[in-house]
Amino acid sequence: MDEQTIYEKMRLELRRGVLVLAVLSQLQQEHYGYSLRKNLADKGVDIDEGTLYPLIRRLEKQGLLQSEWRQDDKRKKRFYQLSEAGEQMLERLQKEWFEVSSTLSSLLKGA
Amino acid sequence: MDEQTIYEKMRLELRRGVLVLAVLSQLQQEHYGYSLRKNLADKGVDIDEGTLYPLIRRLEKQGLLQSEWRQDDKRKKRFYQLSEAGEQMLERLQKEWFEVSSTLSSLLKGA
Repeated sequence: MDEQTIYEKMRLELRRGVLVLAVLSQLQQEHYGYSLRKNLADKGVDIDEGTLYPLIRRLEKQGLLQSEWRQDDKRKKRFYQLSEAGEQMLERLQKEWFEVSSTLSSLLKGA
Repeated sequence: MDEQTIYEKMRLELRRGVLVLAVLSQLQQEHYGYSLRKNLADKGVDIDEGTLYPLIRRLEKQGLLQSEWRQDDKRKKRFYQLSEAGEQMLERLQKEWFEVSSTLSSLLKGA
């Protein structure tokens, strides 16, 4: 494996870790798949459909999202939003993230 | 799966993503396995031996660490430190981390 490949793998691992948190944060507001993906991309988080859509379904199965089919712009779309359990999970993960983030900052500064 | 289990999984994923970066950051200085683990724990990163030691070996295999057996305190120990490729990798990952971190901060604030 060359260095570029190693880097890409590590980079992906770094991004994968925060993906759930990024998705949950945006689903405090209602979104359907495409609007969620666009919203995340606009804010600097690129996720391909093959990753995002299974992730959403998993989060719903875990009870963290609620969804509803609705007519929008003449097409039926499935809208997702955090459930109450999802809001609590977001809050807990967010705290965890702030901890991880400040620990790492001090490791990198100290180094 | 209950909520606590889901949370623990997500929490682990979050921490796993930054583990390599945490380890590389500390190996700018020389360490042997135990001193590295203690050093990380003191700074808030708990890794069990079964995770840390294979990770170190993998990083060495990838050419990011160099190591040397040396006598220390009457026992032979293997000392690890970043190679030049490792230093470059640390720098690249660190940049990536600052990006991920600032993106997520703004997602969480905006939410």
